[in-house]
Amino acid sequence: MIHKDHPRYESLKLRAMVVDAYKRGILADSGMIAHGRGEAFDYLLGEKTSNNAKKAVKAAAAALILAENPVISVNGNTTALVPREIVKLAKEIQCKIEINLFYRTPERISAIEKVFKDVCAENVLGNDHEEKESIKGLEGPRSSSSKEGIYIADVVLVPLEDGDRAEELVKLGKLLITIDLNPLSRTAKTASITIVDNIVRAIPNLIEAIQELKGADPSTLHQIIESFNNNENIQESLIKISKKYTGVEQ
Amino acid sequence: MIHKDHPRYESLKLRAMVVDAYKRGILADSGMIAHGRGEAFDYLLGEKTSNNAKKAVKAAAAALILAENPVISVNGNTTALVPREIVKLAKEIQCKIEINLFYRTPERISAIEKVFKDVCAENVLGNDHEEKESIKGLEGPRSSSSKEGIYIADVVLVPLEDGDRAEELVKLGKLLITIDLNPLSRTAKTASITIVDNIVRAIPNLIEAIQELKGADPSTLHQIIESFNNNENIQESLIKISKKYTGVEQ
Repeated sequence: MIHKDHPRYESLKLRAMVVDAYKRGILADSGMIAHGRGEAFDYLLGEKTSNNAKKAVKAAAAALILAENPVISVNGNTTALVPREIVKLAKEIQCKIEINLFYRTPERISAIEKVFKDVCAENVLGNDHEEKESIKGLEGPRSSSSKEGIYIADVVLVPLEDGDRAEELVKLGKLLITIDLNPLSRTAKTASITIVDNIVRAIPNLIEAIQELKGADPSTLHQIIESFNNNENIQESLIKISKKYTGVEQ
Repeated sequence: MIHKDHPRYESLKLRAMVVDAYKRGILADSGMIAHGRGEAFDYLLGEKTSNNAKKAVKAAAAALILAENPVISVNGNTTALVPREIVKLAKEIQCKIEINLFYRTPERISAIEKVFKDVCAENVLGNDHEEKESIKGLEGPRSSSSKEGIYIADVVLVPLEDGDRAEELVKLGKLLITIDLNPLSRTAKTASITIVDNIVRAIPNLIEAIQELKGADPSTLHQIIESFNNNENIQESLIKISKKYTGVEQ
């Protein structure tokens, strides 16, 4: 349908994947709109991975390698765009995948579970049959966390997370890694490590960084995390976008 | 559903209107995603009408009052958000409304026509039964223009227009007024007058400006238009957003 030589080919391909996922019941209405917000921010980033996103990816890779109980939290948009890559990442760090939905329905949980099973995921948590623990400070289905998953995790990778939930996870002492195209979002500001990039570039970059750092000794990995300053990194993203806006730098 | 005291009430209300319109067949899939892009840009503008948007509105009001054959071009997103306001604006300047869709289907045309008839619109053009003229340089259904509407119009107000179409309309010598939240979009750069604002604020502001300027003599109105510089105005929007981003000014 979309020609490869279309100047917006990559962006239109992702849009088609999101629309398709919506029609298959994987995304909520707001997931379609959220994708549009992401398009706008990615456009402002020049649709490229910035150097500061690469720095954040490196810190995230170190944290995931050092983690005792890492968990990847997935929602509809993540499932629509990078299910295979999420499974590959989970295998790379031997971690669990947990489904967490802001607009949680049994139908969407099943549809997402099916996508991950179809791409050979092991350990997909978050369905309605398993034991749950409520996250303090959150109400309704949003507060749900798997007793074997996020509830006991020390490091949680949550791409595209809602701000309230991100805040509560950090309060519980978890090292929170997020991927968010909006460097001003509450989640971006709350997380321990924020990768300001499109998830379709960030997850493969993360896999590559983990493969590179896997052999490193723990003290090197600790040092990578300690030398990373999330606020400074976000500020660099803001300046980059601002330059694009005012035409100082393309 | 959405509580009035929710900090994002206004934004969530618009989102609900867009989702509802999508389910009623008024919006294409891409219209949902386009709304999300708009949300992101509006967020960067602080969800407020800037002074330079007010300047652009004043110039647009003057141009619409002076026009001999003004036409308002509407699409799915405009129909979802401000149908009553569009009808009020059309009555204020005695102009026609023309439906123009990027993804044109007979069903969407009918659904949109019905919305406008339900809010007492007169002169809704663009349906499949009337005579059309093709706009040179455009292919497929996008090239369609009503023989009594945009084809003979001297001033066209097109909120949220696609870049190719905007360029061709300007080539045809029309004074093009657009409303676009992205000051970097091709449409924003191409139009004669670009109002960088949310359509839900811009249309009521335009009605008010027209009511205020209606009694003014033509030379005053011409002067307002001549003293307006669209490129400078867009640049001011860019600087405003950039300051918000880098924290120099909120």
